[in-house]
Amino acid sequence: MTTARILDFIKTRRPEGPCLVVDLDVVRDNFNAFRHSLPNSAIYYAVKANPAPEILKLLASLGSSFDCASVAEIQMALDAGATADRISFGNTIKKERDVARAYALGIDLFAVDSHEEVEKVARAAPGARVFCRVLTDGEGAEWPLSRKFGCVPQMAVDVLVYAHQMGLESYGVSFHVGSQMMNLDAWDAALADAKRVFGSLAKQGIHLQMVNMGGGFPTKYLRDVPAAEEYGQAIDTALRKHFGNQIPKTIIEPGRGMVGNAGVIKAEVVLVSKKSDNDNHRWVFLDIGKFGGLAETMDEAIRYPIRTERDQDEMQPCILAGPTCDSADVLYEKNMYPLPVSLTIGDEVLIEGTGAYTTTYSAVAFNGFEPLKAYVI
Amino acid sequence: MTTARILDFIKTRRPEGPCLVVDLDVVRDNFNAFRHSLPNSAIYYAVKANPAPEILKLLASLGSSFDCASVAEIQMALDAGATADRISFGNTIKKERDVARAYALGIDLFAVDSHEEVEKVARAAPGARVFCRVLTDGEGAEWPLSRKFGCVPQMAVDVLVYAHQMGLESYGVSFHVGSQMMNLDAWDAALADAKRVFGSLAKQGIHLQMVNMGGGFPTKYLRDVPAAEEYGQAIDTALRKHFGNQIPKTIIEPGRGMVGNAGVIKAEVVLVSKKSDNDNHRWVFLDIGKFGGLAETMDEAIRYPIRTERDQDEMQPCILAGPTCDSADVLYEKNMYPLPVSLTIGDEVLIEGTGAYTTTYSAVAFNGFEPLKAYVI
Repeated sequence: MTTARILDFIKTRRPEGPCLVVDLDVVRDNFNAFRHSLPNSAIYYAVKANPAPEILKLLASLGSSFDCASVAEIQMALDAGATADRISFGNTIKKERDVARAYALGIDLFAVDSHEEVEKVARAAPGARVFCRVLTDGEGAEWPLSRKFGCVPQMAVDVLVYAHQMGLESYGVSFHVGSQMMNLDAWDAALADAKRVFGSLAKQGIHLQMVNMGGGFPTKYLRDVPAAEEYGQAIDTALRKHFGNQIPKTIIEPGRGMVGNAGVIKAEVVLVSKKSDNDNHRWVFLDIGKFGGLAETMDEAIRYPIRTERDQDEMQPCILAGPTCDSADVLYEKNMYPLPVSLTIGDEVLIEGTGAYTTTYSAVAFNGFEPLKAYVI
Repeated sequence: MTTARILDFIKTRRPEGPCLVVDLDVVRDNFNAFRHSLPNSAIYYAVKANPAPEILKLLASLGSSFDCASVAEIQMALDAGATADRISFGNTIKKERDVARAYALGIDLFAVDSHEEVEKVARAAPGARVFCRVLTDGEGAEWPLSRKFGCVPQMAVDVLVYAHQMGLESYGVSFHVGSQMMNLDAWDAALADAKRVFGSLAKQGIHLQMVNMGGGFPTKYLRDVPAAEEYGQAIDTALRKHFGNQIPKTIIEPGRGMVGNAGVIKAEVVLVSKKSDNDNHRWVFLDIGKFGGLAETMDEAIRYPIRTERDQDEMQPCILAGPTCDSADVLYEKNMYPLPVSLTIGDEVLIEGTGAYTTTYSAVAFNGFEPLKAYVI
């Protein structure tokens, strides 16, 4: 997954310290694959996955819309050239003054999942469009979403009726099948729920127009993932199955699927050691860890492909850890990671599939280590 | 634990957004308590706990030494007025070029736990003093340290013999009983190990001088913790028990114990909602979460005391979560947190005991949210 351009950049520029290198050509390819596979869906890039200005500018120029989690992200999308009508405020947890700020910037599409949030939007963004997030079970996702966002479908009906009563435009529903979703059927169940909400509201004279199908589109880590076309087809089939010939407007919000495979982190082996003479396992310590950008290794959830220049040598599982004085800064221990036995201090390693959810996750200065640097090429 | 000075600061300054307020008077009291309780131990403040310049300056002026995890932290300690002889490079995972940088800054005390690390120090800091970290089991700690740092005592002997052969000064051993250690006996077992390493090396003509007893001193969260005096007494007893009348130089490295209870985070309730009409539990969302400085709620390890202005009202357990669009950004869910039923959007909450391991843990800009601001008063 490391492109020739990225390899060339690392070889010729020799950036000091751990860094992420993102290849914009891959982002462009991903965008085009989504557009091709889901031609009738508007693409709202999930800015939180990687808000690098170069990425936002490219996507804005390609016609992408943007799903933003905060006013700061909205501002970044605007700065990148997106117009306000191509931006949604997709966080269901917003301060009322942030709703007001967004509204003042021209945003009129907001996520809600509770009556309380509807009241904030009604007060701070009168007349705006809202969509209500519905809970899905996230089965089959590698980074499951728990129940933090959304409400049960029956409550979503009530929330959207309430929004209508409060003078907002009850515009649609959203769901998120779970990040890095490998199960193509996940969208089917969620779209069935969405259709039920549409039906219940129609009976009350409220006609929803849009289904926000969220993200969840995977990026390739160690296992192969279905291609965008397969997702497109599964979603198309599910839409037709549940909505017949009254297919609503749809939105997708790829984040990981848009930029994950576009980035590679260059890191360095700082130490290879054992804990006792008869220790069966090596500890390999890198100059990047859980607090330097690899937060998604939490609970060993995401398992990144790692390349070294010694991959033709014998491989043995090792414990992989980061450079900080924090014992929680271990990447893979329960499921050890196979790395070449010849791997040695000073070796460069490439951690692939790290274009999403890395730079912005990195700690300000934990242990005095700088946040992850990024180069977008 | 919220001091009158902190309350006054928050009331009069009304800082916008979530922020940490640290009361230097409490840090001073903590330092004096350590000095009083362990009068024969040198205090090396663990800079990583909170590297705010005001804290480092105060501690430097009080005569503290500093345990640093990186060259950046060493530079901060020097900038705060510490001389190089009062600074140790306590990370066992160091790039050789960082050892060289530290050595150039005058640092001559380094932690090691492997032959490989000894070689780096021997090359980059010839003649320097090294101490070898010994593995302890961390039983009784609320933030256990796993096996990431240290080696078994027998290997520590070999490592220190090797250091001696490489021209370094084999100066001592270190251990860390585990963070937020509540079990006073933990130091006894570790000091027994330390003594065995001293004995083995003495037989080979190498006379260690120092035991670095690490950190682990707790701060008060919800449960009461033993006072510094009790730790001092337990450690003194264990030192006499194992070292008799040949007590070595000792070092302690308090971090959490020095600043944890000196800080309070002011946050705001962004949303209180339920997921369905018959949901038994409220979700309370704050404007700070796991990625904004409360990383130590990982696996719900650290349970902070939380104060509101409605604490005299009826309390009910709720799920407490942060403001980002990340489902992992939940603070307490498995063990729900009792908060007033009357708690409402816009209410201020005070999260106590947050002086350590918060600001530097916070993400650069995850979801566009700014890192945690800090005021040191």
